[in-house]
Amino acid sequence: MEFLNGKGVVYTPLKDVDLGPYSTEFYLQANVKAPRMTGLLVKIFTHLLECPILGTLLLFILKGNNLIHRLITNAEFKESPLFVPLHDFEDLKEKEVKCLDSSLSPPEKVQLALDCLPKSSEETLDGTNSSFCRWTIMDYAKAYYSGDLTPSLVAERFIAAIDESTKPPLQMGFFIHYSADDILKQATESTLRYQRGEPISVLDGVPVAIKDEIDCLPYPTTGGTTWLHKERPCSDDACCVKRLRLCGAILVGKTNMHELGSGTSGINPHYGPARNPYDTNKIAGGSSSGSASLVSAGLCPVALGVDGGGSVRMPAALCGVVGLKPTFERIPHEGVLPLNWTVGMVGILAGTVEDALIVYAAISGEIPYHKTFSVSTKINLPRLSLTKSISDIKLAKYGKWFDDCSDDVRICCTKTLHKLQDHYNWKIIDVTIPEIEAMRLAHYITIGSECSTALDSFKEKNFAELGWDVRVAQSIYGAFSSLEYLKAQKMRNRQLQFHKKIFAEADVIVSPTTGFDFLLFSQTSKNGFL
Amino acid sequence: MEFLNGKGVVYTPLKDVDLGPYSTEFYLQANVKAPRMTGLLVKIFTHLLECPILGTLLLFILKGNNLIHRLITNAEFKESPLFVPLHDFEDLKEKEVKCLDSSLSPPEKVQLALDCLPKSSEETLDGTNSSFCRWTIMDYAKAYYSGDLTPSLVAERFIAAIDESTKPPLQMGFFIHYSADDILKQATESTLRYQRGEPISVLDGVPVAIKDEIDCLPYPTTGGTTWLHKERPCSDDACCVKRLRLCGAILVGKTNMHELGSGTSGINPHYGPARNPYDTNKIAGGSSSGSASLVSAGLCPVALGVDGGGSVRMPAALCGVVGLKPTFERIPHEGVLPLNWTVGMVGILAGTVEDALIVYAAISGEIPYHKTFSVSTKINLPRLSLTKSISDIKLAKYGKWFDDCSDDVRICCTKTLHKLQDHYNWKIIDVTIPEIEAMRLAHYITIGSECSTALDSFKEKNFAELGWDVRVAQSIYGAFSSLEYLKAQKMRNRQLQFHKKIFAEADVIVSPTTGFDFLLFSQTSKNGFL
Repeated sequence: MEFLNGKGVVYTPLKDVDLGPYSTEFYLQANVKAPRMTGLLVKIFTHLLECPILGTLLLFILKGNNLIHRLITNAEFKESPLFVPLHDFEDLKEKEVKCLDSSLSPPEKVQLALDCLPKSSEETLDGTNSSFCRWTIMDYAKAYYSGDLTPSLVAERFIAAIDESTKPPLQMGFFIHYSADDILKQATESTLRYQRGEPISVLDGVPVAIKDEIDCLPYPTTGGTTWLHKERPCSDDACCVKRLRLCGAILVGKTNMHELGSGTSGINPHYGPARNPYDTNKIAGGSSSGSASLVSAGLCPVALGVDGGGSVRMPAALCGVVGLKPTFERIPHEGVLPLNWTVGMVGILAGTVEDALIVYAAISGEIPYHKTFSVSTKINLPRLSLTKSISDIKLAKYGKWFDDCSDDVRICCTKTLHKLQDHYNWKIIDVTIPEIEAMRLAHYITIGSECSTALDSFKEKNFAELGWDVRVAQSIYGAFSSLEYLKAQKMRNRQLQFHKKIFAEADVIVSPTTGFDFLLFSQTSKNGFL
Repeated sequence: MEFLNGKGVVYTPLKDVDLGPYSTEFYLQANVKAPRMTGLLVKIFTHLLECPILGTLLLFILKGNNLIHRLITNAEFKESPLFVPLHDFEDLKEKEVKCLDSSLSPPEKVQLALDCLPKSSEETLDGTNSSFCRWTIMDYAKAYYSGDLTPSLVAERFIAAIDESTKPPLQMGFFIHYSADDILKQATESTLRYQRGEPISVLDGVPVAIKDEIDCLPYPTTGGTTWLHKERPCSDDACCVKRLRLCGAILVGKTNMHELGSGTSGINPHYGPARNPYDTNKIAGGSSSGSASLVSAGLCPVALGVDGGGSVRMPAALCGVVGLKPTFERIPHEGVLPLNWTVGMVGILAGTVEDALIVYAAISGEIPYHKTFSVSTKINLPRLSLTKSISDIKLAKYGKWFDDCSDDVRICCTKTLHKLQDHYNWKIIDVTIPEIEAMRLAHYITIGSECSTALDSFKEKNFAELGWDVRVAQSIYGAFSSLEYLKAQKMRNRQLQFHKKIFAEADVIVSPTTGFDFLLFSQTSKNGFL
């Protein structure tokens, strides 16, 4: 990119951008410039932001400080906007890759996933695992099959553990709503199925938690607020929840989240902070905070979250579990709060990659005869593969970006990379991913604009009930122009092209998920503004 | 729809909207409330609009007066936004319908179109046509084949006619640029092809004019401005122009247009008004003004235009010729000024439906191995059919909308409908198309936002050179929020669903193209503000 009169960036034509390791593309370190405030100051700032003219002026300054004007608003792009992150349909028949046909039932899909799992992983599922004993889906299934345990017994212990952990001294804020009766009822049914020798799938009787942004009966869907469930009653399971139920999973309740998904600390002013099981004085990350926290604590092998901008991946990283944000439209979005349309997807938090794969298989694939987006699409079928010749994996690494994190994180991630290289002989390809900070801002404009539009009808009546940090976020979200939105979609197009090129050379792009390892609660954060 | 607290509309869920003739849906007559100003007043108004704070305030009032707040900004929608007007891919094999395979060459496509033309039309193409003698493509082709005429002779007469008509008393403003030398050179080549007995297609030697929004060598592409061609030099033919050239057509120059396509009068302050051939004191309509005017005058059988919001269809209606805006992505947009992305398409102005079909066949179909939009699309192939059993056509008519026009227009259009019913036994299906005025506003927000974004980098340097009406338009275009853009896309989704349902019952929706028949130039309009 090239700067233009100090006003806005002129982006280099796509074909001239070098993605190689010696590219002259500049790495711009993210430098979020926001006032850090607590207590009364936050409240005053919020009210100022919400003023018609003064608010506009304040937001103009905030946008300028954070380079939005320079990198997006006044920038020059040659690309067309790309509105929906759909890829060209590829009718690839890849060897050793199984496609999840939409006509299969969820239990059939789960079986297909199990067939993909390498033999070696079954061995490690034996209980011979020496480290912290977090039960996997297969651990539950084997215990149920063998009769060592029943789902009812697990349910009782689960309820006891939740009861204990939510009280002092732990005070974990796992759930917004959960019903012991409903859990026990599902567990009894599952127990009977095992007794009859008719379990539905390996997920039968396995506890799975659902982020409170996803509809799941008999609970309301609050989205972390005190009012949204009153305005939008929950009348059915979301499609992904229905599929889990069809597999026999026990749905154990609605997990805590950052209010409206508009933040990443997971500190909810109404339902308390989710807290990190590794240290309850530290945040779990967010917005799928409770889901990550539960899985990390070993209480559920898997939980569902929703990820619009890291909301599954960030808490997963901070809680030390696996976080998966699948490709757009792979998992139906029906029955998920419509907080945005083109960035948020149902994601999976799991203790192991294998468990994420099993649940991914259970809930993914389009709904036959139904499309959320009326564009002319033939969605690429979800693909499963753990059997690709394991020495063949190529990892793309953008050094400057990879290293832009705390020392702890860098050392840990670099070590992991070395292990993968040494153990599996995986190769690292050094690349340059240009304009990452501009993409971050383009994403922020996109998710902000979509969220503000989605919630607009509640603004006048309900926003006063929101936490202060979310009110600030919503004020910023509502301040983007259509020009900024469209330019953000042009940046989206650029990044899609960059990523396509990189994925033509590599299988995976590696980077730390978060730049820091843990955040302590402070007085600030306890007041709900971080 | 249902009004909410007098602030914004709450739109009825799609499934509950009745599209039948006895629907209770309210027809809201378009009532554009804009100050009518001339001379100095326009200039003052423009400067006020361009002021940072006062402009915002003025635009807020203008938006309110024109129901934008009520019907879009503060409205409540249940739908997701639809960003790009793509339809689901249908792999239909319709009887008697020919698909234009992308791998065919343009002359092969033209031949396919000729094969679709019914025998009867060949008879009327014989010259036995009794009314005003506007030559069709087949008239040219036959005269060239028979040796009665040569392309060179036609070119000479064309040049003489243009020379005469652009002088007083007619003062037609057909072209922004045209070169007699270039026309004669192409004509000589075509003449030689006929002499060798090797014409390329029926379009060989046929004069075709191109709107000055589409790249066509050796001309600059001004977009009706005095500066855009300097900022964006034209270095190649647009894809559609290339295809016409491959068919042997003579490209006769770049036609006049409403500046930047931002208006529909066709009064260009820099290149003069295009004028209506039926009465040179009346407007030709716009923005593809010169193209419509030339075809109407009988100087070209066909011309290309670009239609983002009626810019082909309106001047066609006012000049009494055929205007076709094809489906999105049927004609490649490469080499067309990127004034918007999701609403503007290359369109065709022609003397007859048959000629529009021939040129449509020549220029349509995707570019193999190339896609403008990187969404996962398999574009429906362009379809040609004039041979559908002619008594089978069903015409959808929304009475209240159809009749919302001047008496002249209503009487004329109703008569035409009766003729079609009597002569071909076509059936009229009475329908209701809800929320037409809201769709008009949603379209306005969409095209305005896209246009403002597309031209943003020229704003500071070049907008002062624009005509006053276009400066006003650009000020309004730049004032939409991302929320308004997204809500407009929700309305787009609603209308797509409504139209799908109607097209499940009917083949065509009939309505007058413009609500009035002719507009006189007035002092106002001569000053460039209508």
